[in-house]
Amino acid sequence: MFRITPVDGGVCVVDGIYASGVNAGLKKDGLDLGFIRSEKEMDVVYLFTTNKFQAAPIKYVLRKEIKKTNFILANSKNANAMTGEEGIKDIEDILSFLNTKIKTSGAIMSSTGVIGVRLDKEKIKKGIEKFDFNERDSHKFAKAIMTTDKFPKEISFEVEGNFGKFKIGGVAKGAGMINPAMATMLCFITTDANVPANEMKEILSEINEVTFNAISVDGDTSTNDSVFLMTTRDGDYEKEAFREALKQVMQKLALDIVRDGEGATKVVAFVVTGAKNKKEAKIVGKNLTNSLLVKTALFGEDPNWGRIAATIGASGVECDENKLRIAFENVVVYDRGKIIFDEETERKAHEVMKRKEFKIYVDLGIADGAYTAYGCDLSYEYIKINAEYRT
Amino acid sequence: MFRITPVDGGVCVVDGIYASGVNAGLKKDGLDLGFIRSEKEMDVVYLFTTNKFQAAPIKYVLRKEIKKTNFILANSKNANAMTGEEGIKDIEDILSFLNTKIKTSGAIMSSTGVIGVRLDKEKIKKGIEKFDFNERDSHKFAKAIMTTDKFPKEISFEVEGNFGKFKIGGVAKGAGMINPAMATMLCFITTDANVPANEMKEILSEINEVTFNAISVDGDTSTNDSVFLMTTRDGDYEKEAFREALKQVMQKLALDIVRDGEGATKVVAFVVTGAKNKKEAKIVGKNLTNSLLVKTALFGEDPNWGRIAATIGASGVECDENKLRIAFENVVVYDRGKIIFDEETERKAHEVMKRKEFKIYVDLGIADGAYTAYGCDLSYEYIKINAEYRT
Repeated sequence: MFRITPVDGGVCVVDGIYASGVNAGLKKDGLDLGFIRSEKEMDVVYLFTTNKFQAAPIKYVLRKEIKKTNFILANSKNANAMTGEEGIKDIEDILSFLNTKIKTSGAIMSSTGVIGVRLDKEKIKKGIEKFDFNERDSHKFAKAIMTTDKFPKEISFEVEGNFGKFKIGGVAKGAGMINPAMATMLCFITTDANVPANEMKEILSEINEVTFNAISVDGDTSTNDSVFLMTTRDGDYEKEAFREALKQVMQKLALDIVRDGEGATKVVAFVVTGAKNKKEAKIVGKNLTNSLLVKTALFGEDPNWGRIAATIGASGVECDENKLRIAFENVVVYDRGKIIFDEETERKAHEVMKRKEFKIYVDLGIADGAYTAYGCDLSYEYIKINAEYRT
Repeated sequence: MFRITPVDGGVCVVDGIYASGVNAGLKKDGLDLGFIRSEKEMDVVYLFTTNKFQAAPIKYVLRKEIKKTNFILANSKNANAMTGEEGIKDIEDILSFLNTKIKTSGAIMSSTGVIGVRLDKEKIKKGIEKFDFNERDSHKFAKAIMTTDKFPKEISFEVEGNFGKFKIGGVAKGAGMINPAMATMLCFITTDANVPANEMKEILSEINEVTFNAISVDGDTSTNDSVFLMTTRDGDYEKEAFREALKQVMQKLALDIVRDGEGATKVVAFVVTGAKNKKEAKIVGKNLTNSLLVKTALFGEDPNWGRIAATIGASGVECDENKLRIAFENVVVYDRGKIIFDEETERKAHEVMKRKEFKIYVDLGIADGAYTAYGCDLSYEYIKINAEYRT
């Protein structure tokens, strides 16, 4: 038995953890450079993008095989991706400058923004000089890593049970190029839970699969996707409590990313059941979140279930139109070969679609594979943001 | 040696072939029901969608194993898909009514439009009564099968050489739900070439792979994609001449579909070379045509090559940033690890992107796999068309 209570603090919910953000001049105004710092070294595990062109910050962490850290430096506006060896040298140069300001060990840099442009080291160094390393403002850090995000994404909990207690908090960013194939654009989670070292990565991967890996905004997988889980080990631990708390943290942050999906007006959960296996259920879910015709129907609040059926049929999974069921919340529109779509049903389904958040149920009726994928609609605003992002 | 000369006529370029279209009341106004009729039985081969939920008209043809036909009936506005056995019975009923008006053999019905709604048989029968079976107006047929298409798609050639001569003509429709995995939304090709029966399907498949299968408007694969190739065998034949003429017919119609892509303002050829093999080159090409971030950058005329790189890296193929080259026509922006993207290069690349049609070259530098995929940009108009298509 355990109780999970929302509290303030974000990544600074954990004792001895500091965070903040400044304007380093990468953005015209607004915060663009932030840090998370820990008084003691933390154990860290991470999940990175499956994109073959991993960004320099990811290559750096993998090359150094970082397992303990007391400092994370993160910037927005520039992804430091496709920058080759020079991109990695830029990180080394910046981190050694940082070390003249504050003693770090296993420092990690994390970047997000435009791909294919070298970092402006001078601006970042000037930004570092502005840091107040004793600030504890998770909110400023969350803002400093925003790109096209409209709101910062933060959450923190205190967890108590017979085993004792621990704290956990997370910050994430992401609004576009979101179709995580391993993790998503920058997520930092701190805890003091005394997680056994050998369980940390396994639990993170397991929860990631049903949270960040379950969301899509635009079907594009970034070069920079990263999730970091760090612990000071000052608190207590129980596996079930920790899994549940981590899931609530990651679920909240993942859904916030969909809610903030570029141009999104709706968040839709595609609850897929009855697939041949979990893998096929996931394929269906991901295909539904990525179909332009499904996404535009969501935007138009049009219960055009034919587009959902066509997407399932095109996905390559085992399916049969005489076994398939489709429902908008509790409004069944197609039931194992029968079209249940008179005017009354259409009106009810349309009512469901007017909501900001709702579920679409797809049962394939083949076996018991299940997966829930989270997506959003595709609006004029998405085009505006992405046709005008750079130039 | 042979000469391919464009001529008028569309599918009626071949002697003894009739075609027309009428308004049957499926659309408020405009043509919505058409036919192609031949005086003599034609050999027919076809390629259908790989979507598992094949529409009733496709199931009908496959079930009857039709190999010879003298009549094609086609309607727009309703795809007769996800309609189960009743959808097939509707076709049987309509075709037997047709047979009371004109004697047909191996008649085929072909449908396009909304998925999941039963055909209005009475309207279609009234439309059939309006047919003038002796009209030879390919243009009216092409118009009758349009849905969100803005223009009809037709082409015809006369081919002459030492071997003699033959004629070939085609009509296609399609503007949305275009990511053919076998063929695309409704294409009808007639010829009098005396193609050996055992070569017909093989040649059609081969040409289809580099024409219709190479295009994408929105990454959504329809339930109704169909390409029909029919011959009266009244003309002559030479394999090379026929392959080339068929390729020109299918290439023209496929590119017309992209040019007419819902909301498209640009047609872009992604010329992929240097991949591990042809399959991986195709994966890269198709992923580039389907990436929302690449498509919106095209619309914004933004030479944001980082999005192209990210899409390649996410596609799962073998690639290496030190071997990759990317160019907008002759403007190289990234060359095997080096970013070549100063202000001058950006300006030149932007100039290229202002054109209505241009090429983006991607060389993976791994081996010699090559494929060219054709796509279009993603504009506000796409959203408008698809958010408002039905309701």
